[in-house]
Amino acid sequence: MLIVKKFGGTSVADKERIYNVAKRCIEDYNKGDDVVVVLSAMGKYTDELIDMATDINEKPPKREMDMLLSIGEQMSVALMGMAMDKLHVPAVSLNAFQVSMHTTSVHGNARLKRIDTERIHRELENRRIVIVTGFQGVNKYDDYTTLGRGGSDTTAVALAAALHADLCEIFTDVDGIYTADPRIVPGARKLKEITYDEMLDLATLGAGVLHNRSVEMAKKYGVPLVVRSSLNNSEGTVVKEEVSVERMLISGVALDTEAVRIAVIGLKDVPGMAFRLFDILARKNINVDMILQSIGRSGTKDISFTVNRGDLDEAVAALEGARARLGYKELHSEKNIAKLSIVGAGMMSNPGVAARMFESLYNENVNINMIATSEIRITVIINEKDGVRAMNAVHDAFDLAD
Amino acid sequence: MLIVKKFGGTSVADKERIYNVAKRCIEDYNKGDDVVVVLSAMGKYTDELIDMATDINEKPPKREMDMLLSIGEQMSVALMGMAMDKLHVPAVSLNAFQVSMHTTSVHGNARLKRIDTERIHRELENRRIVIVTGFQGVNKYDDYTTLGRGGSDTTAVALAAALHADLCEIFTDVDGIYTADPRIVPGARKLKEITYDEMLDLATLGAGVLHNRSVEMAKKYGVPLVVRSSLNNSEGTVVKEEVSVERMLISGVALDTEAVRIAVIGLKDVPGMAFRLFDILARKNINVDMILQSIGRSGTKDISFTVNRGDLDEAVAALEGARARLGYKELHSEKNIAKLSIVGAGMMSNPGVAARMFESLYNENVNINMIATSEIRITVIINEKDGVRAMNAVHDAFDLAD
Repeated sequence: MLIVKKFGGTSVADKERIYNVAKRCIEDYNKGDDVVVVLSAMGKYTDELIDMATDINEKPPKREMDMLLSIGEQMSVALMGMAMDKLHVPAVSLNAFQVSMHTTSVHGNARLKRIDTERIHRELENRRIVIVTGFQGVNKYDDYTTLGRGGSDTTAVALAAALHADLCEIFTDVDGIYTADPRIVPGARKLKEITYDEMLDLATLGAGVLHNRSVEMAKKYGVPLVVRSSLNNSEGTVVKEEVSVERMLISGVALDTEAVRIAVIGLKDVPGMAFRLFDILARKNINVDMILQSIGRSGTKDISFTVNRGDLDEAVAALEGARARLGYKELHSEKNIAKLSIVGAGMMSNPGVAARMFESLYNENVNINMIATSEIRITVIINEKDGVRAMNAVHDAFDLAD
Repeated sequence: MLIVKKFGGTSVADKERIYNVAKRCIEDYNKGDDVVVVLSAMGKYTDELIDMATDINEKPPKREMDMLLSIGEQMSVALMGMAMDKLHVPAVSLNAFQVSMHTTSVHGNARLKRIDTERIHRELENRRIVIVTGFQGVNKYDDYTTLGRGGSDTTAVALAAALHADLCEIFTDVDGIYTADPRIVPGARKLKEITYDEMLDLATLGAGVLHNRSVEMAKKYGVPLVVRSSLNNSEGTVVKEEVSVERMLISGVALDTEAVRIAVIGLKDVPGMAFRLFDILARKNINVDMILQSIGRSGTKDISFTVNRGDLDEAVAALEGARARLGYKELHSEKNIAKLSIVGAGMMSNPGVAARMFESLYNENVNINMIATSEIRITVIINEKDGVRAMNAVHDAFDLAD
């Protein structure tokens, strides 16, 4: 069996943890498996490198930033190679040049295009554990790139796809995917299985265990994913195309308090208005999430949408700057909101799911500001202060607790 | 003009110094020169990486060690790229993969075989300053190698040779080559020029300004070298094939207190004995320096030689282990010695140089233990306690002071 195992920065933050990871890999190796390990930079080392860079130049060129950041993972893999050697297991560390990991050209947020597998296969044939730098790639100019947030997960999944691995294990500081964040919903239950699509919606919704780019890639190439803890040996959650256990209606409830809402009131009701508005934000690289358009008074319309908290000021400034061009009447923003979502492939074939969610919120006296749905997801915007209570109520309503 | 400039670790140890280096490079760039900068790892960062490695594995595999150490220079060049960007000068940093720097396979002490210049030339044509990692290379297996002591000097000289540079400037914490170490001989004078051969002997003799591998390479390819200070703008010393000023008899006096002497007494006087003895040391990778063989009593011979202080215990152990095979009578070692050398291409055509040196030592009542000479060098072994006094006496005897 060929296994790709990915460990994040906290899992390799110090000597003891490096040895823990080494031992977990060696267990599989000793069973006869081929083992490829993908590592992030140690602990907060990437942040330290960023601080170092911005001390030199508060706006460092992205090409040089990637050149600097890529050393973080190289440090991790080299030290891991030394730890495995100390444990008498043949191992070899490889960076993005050595693999090679071909990406698009854009620095800081590149996408993997192709992974050469020749060197890795050769090392595996020689019965070595192969330790690969996550997060980094090389573009067509032979320059380092980095993959952006969740990059090491993406590296692991892409490697698993390229190597036709039998399994891709993502080790995190939680021991799997839960029906809700256990810190907020004490009765939350760990899922044995979840579909790629549900995971995608959960990742997007801020459950934060896996980055959605890695889940998208796993879905695309059918890579069997397991999310499990780097701290214990519990089984984790399998992410795959179809779950084999009897379908639950709902797989999970997610709460996101990072979103803020902007309302643009009294836009003229002419074609192209929505395009103009969101084009202004797109040019500022501001990601817009939920969008709701409603007919306003006397031939105008209102558009509400959510953006990340960090983008609020820039978004408002951009829209105020374009007031003349857009011709709206008022601009409101609301920070004290929360996005509550339920996700479940089972809801597609099951009417009444939305009703049950809304009923539970009504019973808790939680007011709903906005609603958005997809085939496998229902999201509502509520007041931030109601967030935890609402989440628990919905979790209970669908009998998700243990 | 194409200039290769090399700055060591202390020259890039912090933000301020990085900017100093950036500005010096930009001065040349603004004159219209093509500038290639070779950097070492910042300050003591290589030592920190070694500590990190040996904490994980007291005997880390050399292949992984090079993988780890190579990040040091990559950090320097990326930060330098950011500093130059901040100063509004286009620059690009390149590591050994990006250049590429082809070396022999051996880790920790590889030799440069070939440098691809295509990328560098292309960047220079685009009027960028090119910042290259010193000390590192890539072997035929696509693995990082490091060049060993003085490696960044070698990188700079090799790059200058490959690029047919007009000049290779080595910046150090001294402002040139002196007739003697100014910390020991206060009147020592900075040389305007020195030949490769003299520099080679001085480097070998422990003057320590340039590593001999880089001087050898400069001589082989006729690279015009300048050794100058990274702290001030003084002119430095030019190292080249023939010096143009009128020849001085002696270029410099060097003192080396790192050597220790081993004497093997009463070896059987049969052919092959010297080979057997030094083969034992060569197999332990122990470098032998001065060798002196003399006829002992009754058909035996004595062999004395010097080794580095750090190799003494291992050398003695190896020789004691081979006592039966070598059949010697006694084994002595002497730690309190110093090697004092004078170097000068001028002495070839000038008899009496040795005599003048020995006379000055006699006048100072310094006893000579061993003597070795080459065409342009005379070295004597004296007592360590006499070292400083002897060095000053010889320096005076040849009128080297200002």
